Amino acid sequence: MPVFNAHVPANRFSSQQKRALADALNQSLVQGLGIPEGDRFIMISEHGEDELFLDPTFMGMQRSSDAMIITVLLGAHRPMGDKRAVAETINRLVVEALGVSPDDIFIALIPVPNENFSFGKGELQLAEGAPRW
Amino acid sequence: MPVFNAHVPANRFSSQQKRALADALNQSLVQGLGIPEGDRFIMISEHGEDELFLDPTFMGMQRSSDAMIITVLLGAHRPMGDKRAVAETINRLVVEALGVSPDDIFIALIPVPNENFSFGKGELQLAEGAPRW
Amino acid sequence: MPVFNAHVPANRFSSQQKRALADALNQSLVQGLGIPEGDRFIMISEHGEDELFLDPTFMGMQRSSDAMIITVLLGAHRPMGDKRAVAETINRLVVEALGVSPDDIFIALIPVPNENFSFGKGELQLAEGAPRW
Repeated sequence: MPVFNAHVPANRFSSQQKRALADALNQSLVQGLGIPEGDRFIMISEHGEDELFLDPTFMGMQRSSDAMIITVLLGAHRPMGDKRAVAETINRLVVEALGVSPDDIFIALIPVPNENFSFGKGELQLAEGAPRW
Repeated sequence: MPVFNAHVPANRFSSQQKRALADALNQSLVQGLGIPEGDRFIMISEHGEDELFLDPTFMGMQRSSDAMIITVLLGAHRPMGDKRAVAETINRLVVEALGVSPDDIFIALIPVPNENFSFGKGELQLAEGAPRW
Repeated sequence: MPVFNAHVPANRFSSQQKRALADALNQSLVQGLGIPEGDRFIMISEHGEDELFLDPTFMGMQRSSDAMIITVLLGAHRPMGDKRAVAETINRLVVEALGVSPDDIFIALIPVPNENFSFGKGELQLAEGAPRW
């Protein structure tokens, strides 16, 4: 249940590219964390150029007008190694999918306990037992 | 101060339905957690069909093109019973309000300490005393 | 790396005002927390009048149709004093920048550990050492 919201510049990526972005985010969980492919819950939000601001060089990056902010609601139980794996994999796969620079992808992993997710029917399906994902 | 952001498919729900969705989310706090009706802070975001992806069957659901993701900034002090109550009530009331399937509502409860909210004037009004909501 | 998402009423603020809002949010970190000016990662989202709901009077405010919800992904290590400083500074500077009422600014500070941010290249740049920001 990591849930993505990718905030991208408006009118920059085609519909096909946005679908490829969603596939890349899904695959980052599969390849980076061994999560089932069906666990695919993704939002993309477009922002006009007066609505999305990423400093062009902060922390030694060379950001372009492709730059985006990706938030991930990630299981709060994830250790540092998992966080590194998912950030690295998101970056690599989104770069491949969209042809953007690795410097253009800002990621924030927001910790949320697994027991706080409802996949439907109003139930908190992961409230019982050890975390699976 | 639970704050909602409902991410829904674009051009799927009428303006009247979006207002009914907001009312349902507000009532989920009133009925599910005994929160005052005035505590009503709600965002709705529309996403095109190339911007919102929920797997059609993951975790045993039958999701349709009505499927939505609702995030809730919820007091971090809430015990499991409150989480279950609010998820169940959101689902029931949104199903009633929009006529969608119970399987179409994905919910993520993001824990935020009460002391982290400002209702206006730049003050953190809930920083003192025991949590009320 | 506090990251902002300002949810504002659609067609209410000009492009120039939205840029001034972003500047005010950036300056709230500089002036309120001593964070470097280059740490500027900001999203603005517009919502139609059937998509953004803030109760007009809850908690003793007089909210208008300018009312907005600002979320901030803030370092989870921040003590209460820092939270108060940033909320106060956001409110003051946004009021100055947009000419809105202090009552019209709702803020939620969402705690995120510093180690959970990637500024680019898929690395978690703040994972090592004591929190700087």
